[in-house]
Amino acid sequence: MTQKILEVVQTTILKEKPDPSTLEFGKHFSDHMFMMDYTSEEGWHQPRVVPYQSLTLEPAAMVFHYGQTVFEGLKAYRSSNGDIRLFRPEENFKRLNQSCDRLSIPKVNEEAMLEYLKEFVKLDKDWIPKEKGMSLYIRPFIISTEATLDVSPSRAYTLMIILSPVGSFYKGGIDPVSIFVENEYTRAAPGGTGNAKTAGNYSGAYKAQERASSHKKDQVLWLDGVEKKYVEEVGSMNVFFKINDEIHTPALNGSILEGITRKSVIELLESEGMSVCERSISIDEVIAANENGSLQEMFGTGTAAVISPVGRLEYKGRDYEINNGKMGETASWLHETLVGIQTGALDDPFGWSIEVNG
Amino acid sequence: MTQKILEVVQTTILKEKPDPSTLEFGKHFSDHMFMMDYTSEEGWHQPRVVPYQSLTLEPAAMVFHYGQTVFEGLKAYRSSNGDIRLFRPEENFKRLNQSCDRLSIPKVNEEAMLEYLKEFVKLDKDWIPKEKGMSLYIRPFIISTEATLDVSPSRAYTLMIILSPVGSFYKGGIDPVSIFVENEYTRAAPGGTGNAKTAGNYSGAYKAQERASSHKKDQVLWLDGVEKKYVEEVGSMNVFFKINDEIHTPALNGSILEGITRKSVIELLESEGMSVCERSISIDEVIAANENGSLQEMFGTGTAAVISPVGRLEYKGRDYEINNGKMGETASWLHETLVGIQTGALDDPFGWSIEVNG
Ligand SMILES: Cc1ncc(COP(=O)(O)O)c(C=O)c1O
Ligand SMILES: Cc1ncc(COP(=O)(O)O)c(C=O)c1O
Repeated sequence: MTQKILEVVQTTILKEKPDPSTLEFGKHFSDHMFMMDYTSEEGWHQPRVVPYQSLTLEPAAMVFHYGQTVFEGLKAYRSSNGDIRLFRPEENFKRLNQSCDRLSIPKVNEEAMLEYLKEFVKLDKDWIPKEKGMSLYIRPFIISTEATLDVSPSRAYTLMIILSPVGSFYKGGIDPVSIFVENEYTRAAPGGTGNAKTAGNYSGAYKAQERASSHKKDQVLWLDGVEKKYVEEVGSMNVFFKINDEIHTPALNGSILEGITRKSVIELLESEGMSVCERSISIDEVIAANENGSLQEMFGTGTAAVISPVGRLEYKGRDYEINNGKMGETASWLHETLVGIQTGALDDPFGWSIEVNG
Repeated sequence: MTQKILEVVQTTILKEKPDPSTLEFGKHFSDHMFMMDYTSEEGWHQPRVVPYQSLTLEPAAMVFHYGQTVFEGLKAYRSSNGDIRLFRPEENFKRLNQSCDRLSIPKVNEEAMLEYLKEFVKLDKDWIPKEKGMSLYIRPFIISTEATLDVSPSRAYTLMIILSPVGSFYKGGIDPVSIFVENEYTRAAPGGTGNAKTAGNYSGAYKAQERASSHKKDQVLWLDGVEKKYVEEVGSMNVFFKINDEIHTPALNGSILEGITRKSVIELLESEGMSVCERSISIDEVIAANENGSLQEMFGTGTAAVISPVGRLEYKGRDYEINNGKMGETASWLHETLVGIQTGALDDPFGWSIEVNG
């Protein structure tokens, strides 16, 4: 099936590209944006690309009041021979639909969306940075637009994709991060929206991030919302532990986001004959393993940073150093391998890296 | 202190008012809207009233992505002698600031906001319906407007107030509602955002409302997010029980919204010498009390419906009738008294009903 974008309105004035050396995350956007509308009568319709521009919405638009919105995040990479590559983009549209389901938003056609995305990225391909470690961040999102204060699912939506050139997410490169174990604020609870990528999950986490920062830690380690006992995620990443030469990660329990990097890390390790144990992991176990020396590595996984080693952890007023504050060999290997596959520098036996011929 | 709105730009064309007999909730808005902006440099500034109009926002505006937004809901009533009345509006601005705190949004000046609101309502006073049971719904809300995909508190916000003439919230008048006890989806958990009025709490509840509707029930009865055992709220209302001639309501535990109607109901009952027991109330206790005849009444409280009796309840596949499906005497008395105070028909020994002289 090839789905074509209905209409492309090209911009007449190309914007100046930002200086890669001073680039801030998510502040600059490419020349165009993709849009598509939904109404109860027409379903999703009118896929189009238009110059990047402001939106016009009623003050009563439901997104402002009841937050019915979902989003995704993925990247386009430029390989050394100039190819444009997307990493497992079909997984993002699959997860978008899972999020839509939780938020009572009508689902999109995943195959069509992928075709639209490719066409759109090709049009704005000059926005994919060529510099090492840089990429074009892709943000698909859906907002509810019906203008009513009635508390019920909207009957109108707009889906958009915007593109933003980005450097490394963590400005300190892949220096290990420090984390603060949060045991008061909750990110997500069973039966809630934790496994959907929806706006409210993120702003609800700011208070905890502020506390982590005031303790001079980079990120929050989230515990489960019921017992505040089991590790769930780190910042906006999934989390892995290497204990006694085995890899462990919290099992998907409904309140954890099903990360695509997480999934890829598991598949990659298993393809090397290493098994990954998905289970409940208590913070007490992590602390004990660190104290007795069996915790060899801890790292986060996500599209932004790919692999982000954890070098320091604060829990109940005490600071713990992990792996002497250094990045471990498994984290290093995973980072190199994944980035290699993403950028086309390494072989891709999985077929994860999709070439978009520009 | 008297705070004046900086600037009033009056509309040149007055809109036609909707027909009160066919009025739908939250679909029609008055001639003007109130706005005020925040920037890190200037704080909250430029309070103004302008013709009701669309907003222009960047696609990257943070509200679309990370949902940093809070809102309030209150009403302006027209008394029989033509006065304009607001019900405990200072409580709404106090709660707005509590919500702001949870969502890392800069607080507003509560006293100034109240003065702005009065001035604004006076300007659009012709939009307050004169018909019995009708009122002008007031929706203050704040959205984050900075255009960046960085996951951190916005440095720019807009506060708006829009006004919508409304009839009775429940179209069937004060006929008792039926409710479905939800024991899978969670509205709020300890450490989450349940006691803040923020967008994500509402869209996250749609799935449960859809299930309630598919069971032919009007509203969801929410249980606690940890054990799914204790009653928290009903729909977007707080909940009360009359058991053995005593009034009971779930204690404020951090995941329950601190309703202003709830607070008023407690104060009203206590002023009549009745005590209200705020405690944990399990769904099993409610069912047992209904079975043995000691549950005399159950009702929800909120700005929209004031008092909403519950006549039927479904739990674990069984239907239970409460008080023979009728509104009880306490609910009736509370409804009459509160509506009487709100509309100026009854004496107001509490000073809850504030006259806005137009
Ligand atoms: C809450 C949360 N957890 C985990 C992740 C990691 O997911 P992915 O690997 O698909 O980027 C993300 C998204 O980046 C996230 O927002
Ligand atoms: C979730 C929720 N619970 C309870 C209430 C009742 O609060 P109030 O009495 O202040 O209207 C509201 C708001 O109306 C609400 O949104």
